[in-house]
Amino acid sequence: MTETVTADLRPAAPTAPERRAAVAELAASLPEGMVVTDPDILAGYRQDRAQDPDAGTSLALVRPTTTEQVQTVVRWCAAHGVPIVPRGAGTSLSGGSTAVDGAITLSTEKMRALTIDSATRTAVVQPGLFNAEVKAAAAEQGLWYPPDPSSFQICSIGGNVATNAGGLCCVKYGVTTDYVLGLQVVMADGRALRLGGKQLKDSAGLPLVKMFVGSEGTLGIITEITLRLLPPQAPACTVVGSFASVHQASEAVLAITAQIRPAMLEFMDSVAINAVEDQLRMGLDRSAGALLVAQSDAAGPAGAAEIALIEAAFTEHGATEVYATSDPEEGEQFVVARRMAIPSVEKKGSLLLEDVGVPLPQLPALIDGIAEISRTNDVVVSVIAHAGDGNTHPLLVFDPTDPTEHDRAQLAFGQIMDLAIALGGTITGEHGVGRLKKGWLPDQVGADVMELTATIKRALDPQGLFNPGVIL
Amino acid sequence: MTETVTADLRPAAPTAPERRAAVAELAASLPEGMVVTDPDILAGYRQDRAQDPDAGTSLALVRPTTTEQVQTVVRWCAAHGVPIVPRGAGTSLSGGSTAVDGAITLSTEKMRALTIDSATRTAVVQPGLFNAEVKAAAAEQGLWYPPDPSSFQICSIGGNVATNAGGLCCVKYGVTTDYVLGLQVVMADGRALRLGGKQLKDSAGLPLVKMFVGSEGTLGIITEITLRLLPPQAPACTVVGSFASVHQASEAVLAITAQIRPAMLEFMDSVAINAVEDQLRMGLDRSAGALLVAQSDAAGPAGAAEIALIEAAFTEHGATEVYATSDPEEGEQFVVARRMAIPSVEKKGSLLLEDVGVPLPQLPALIDGIAEISRTNDVVVSVIAHAGDGNTHPLLVFDPTDPTEHDRAQLAFGQIMDLAIALGGTITGEHGVGRLKKGWLPDQVGADVMELTATIKRALDPQGLFNPGVIL
Repeated sequence: MTETVTADLRPAAPTAPERRAAVAELAASLPEGMVVTDPDILAGYRQDRAQDPDAGTSLALVRPTTTEQVQTVVRWCAAHGVPIVPRGAGTSLSGGSTAVDGAITLSTEKMRALTIDSATRTAVVQPGLFNAEVKAAAAEQGLWYPPDPSSFQICSIGGNVATNAGGLCCVKYGVTTDYVLGLQVVMADGRALRLGGKQLKDSAGLPLVKMFVGSEGTLGIITEITLRLLPPQAPACTVVGSFASVHQASEAVLAITAQIRPAMLEFMDSVAINAVEDQLRMGLDRSAGALLVAQSDAAGPAGAAEIALIEAAFTEHGATEVYATSDPEEGEQFVVARRMAIPSVEKKGSLLLEDVGVPLPQLPALIDGIAEISRTNDVVVSVIAHAGDGNTHPLLVFDPTDPTEHDRAQLAFGQIMDLAIALGGTITGEHGVGRLKKGWLPDQVGADVMELTATIKRALDPQGLFNPGVIL
Repeated sequence: MTETVTADLRPAAPTAPERRAAVAELAASLPEGMVVTDPDILAGYRQDRAQDPDAGTSLALVRPTTTEQVQTVVRWCAAHGVPIVPRGAGTSLSGGSTAVDGAITLSTEKMRALTIDSATRTAVVQPGLFNAEVKAAAAEQGLWYPPDPSSFQICSIGGNVATNAGGLCCVKYGVTTDYVLGLQVVMADGRALRLGGKQLKDSAGLPLVKMFVGSEGTLGIITEITLRLLPPQAPACTVVGSFASVHQASEAVLAITAQIRPAMLEFMDSVAINAVEDQLRMGLDRSAGALLVAQSDAAGPAGAAEIALIEAAFTEHGATEVYATSDPEEGEQFVVARRMAIPSVEKKGSLLLEDVGVPLPQLPALIDGIAEISRTNDVVVSVIAHAGDGNTHPLLVFDPTDPTEHDRAQLAFGQIMDLAIALGGTITGEHGVGRLKKGWLPDQVGADVMELTATIKRALDPQGLFNPGVIL
């Protein structure tokens, strides 16, 4: 009998006309044109940079500009049981903003307000700004926002916060969460909360700001971010080293990180070197097995000592060529080369992009193991890495028109995550779990942690409407 | 009828003999002597450094050495509905480890294992070690654990994590949460979870490690901590400045922080200067209205430039005396003076100790406002501060035998928190809310954030057994 009652109370799935009427109601409650149902436009929001082939199609796209409008959308979704996929600039590499059939895609691309407060050395930003725009605005006031994903010119600061994004400078300057002082978040019932603020230290209550950084849109929608800024970085000296083997290069990394914290320590393998050289023609050594790009931004004799130490580590571990420059512009060329690695390798085929990280001493084992996985599956895997913090980006290249190659790449994709877990590492150092890696998360963290994750999700989003299919 | 059923099902409160039998059962399941019920020993665990006069008396004290023993205690507590107060070294300044009548006090003082892994530059520690012991063990391997509460020689690393403790170096090097990579936590049902690990970057799943740092023992019991270590700090140069007024000193602080990140920037007012000088006789200027102690650990010309900038800021803002030294030992004497401020002022009477923080530009307004509150309530308030990050410690001095003075101090204590909230700041920058400040937390964060806090607490600790009366 109880079952019958439950069945009677459960609302029937809305019919197509009912759904259209509901969306029209949402559109009417927001400024003209803010709710989009044009199929051509929706098609452009189905996938993100992860190119998930299983992407759905949204019921509608909403591009709000204010927190209040986000609240309107969330309240409407809660009332109608419609899921919401938050989307920044659509540069997720883990399918974090892949569209879901019947859901609202809430794009923050038009939330672009920004104020820099140089007195408190903070920025208050809306989530839709690009990382590079935040950096530029800070720089205009003589300040610096450090986190620098390789995609910094095209990724949104909201997406950075949602995934706790990293970048090249993290080896010395930490990741996004280290710079988030405050948030405004729209919760599942439509309430907007202010968490934290401009004070640099705050132990008042549970650490709720930190709980949302890296939650990938599953607990609430971030509509405003207060970021800590630093005084400008001192000019960096750059050292580039070519190595015959990736193994030698990874040993050189360990020799450096055991002694100093470089401002950058990046790794590219032979495939990446050649792909970049194809694009940039800057004279990289095409015969090298691996390239390391290191920087020191320490000043004076301390900086000179760091550069000497890096050069010595390169040489001791068999570098065939070592080049150092204190010219920031020349150094930046090598950093640009490293940032260009992903788009350059992408010219060779479709990519499955990994983001596995390991405790530093396991880096050589990870790189060796990836080479083995590449061989056994007959799949080209190019490895680039934020080597100084053990975070690697194996790029699996496949011909999208060849189904067996795609399948082999998928298999290798999973094996690389299995390897990282076996080495005590993580399936994602900075991109987030998204939809593409969630199958591996339980293997990394275990059933009990997954249950705690689900408990928190249920408590904060009882209807399960925020970014369904991500993490859980 | 429903009500009658509920009443029938509710267990009667255990009688005293039943309670004794249950405790005996717990004692039998743990090593000999680990469960203590001796009233004389329990009396020593009633209060912490906050000296809460409303402290209760525990049912028993348990001093486990392993995670498994903590699990045994938590499971027993869950089965019997007995609350647990986790306690580190008992140095809480907010009543975070005040004993609760009928609860178990779980002291981590015997959980003292430690391993330093210099290859990953991490420390894996049990919570009962003193902060100073972690620092010393890291230093033996040529590494550095930065967070440095003034009480670092007597406070536990577990308590530091529970409160997200700060210290003097935070102005440049951040707070405890910035150094916590992994945790083992015993949850309310007795399960022990491993969260995070030795990898420097990890975006896999919800940021659960961060959620526990600063949760003040209300969500779980931390039994192991993986800490990030840094290469050793470069030797610091120290600049000390005497000022006629606290206002001039706080203006000098702003002039410095607008331009550089000093490695330390500490403030003491006239009461603190004189109290310290009474103890240390080191020749501090007793006539000064305020003293600033600043450090730069930048190397070479950059360091020299920072020191020059600090000296200039001191002089421009009316410093009557400026003294700089590059001798680390001499510099450390001034830091010791600053650390001695609380125990020195404490010689003048009982203390109510504040921990209010504000966005930096509000620092002069906070300091002026505290002086006004001191006057109107006729209570001596000495202000010391981690001035560089806007975190102040007003010390309210009262005669414990004079009830009206105690009442006036209590009134001023609340007014200072009200002032910090009005200035957009926090009631606690680094000590935690504990039991003493929870009355003010809703005023700072608002009803909606309190509700979210309660939702998370209920989800993770449905019986409400972990550190009841703290935060909520």
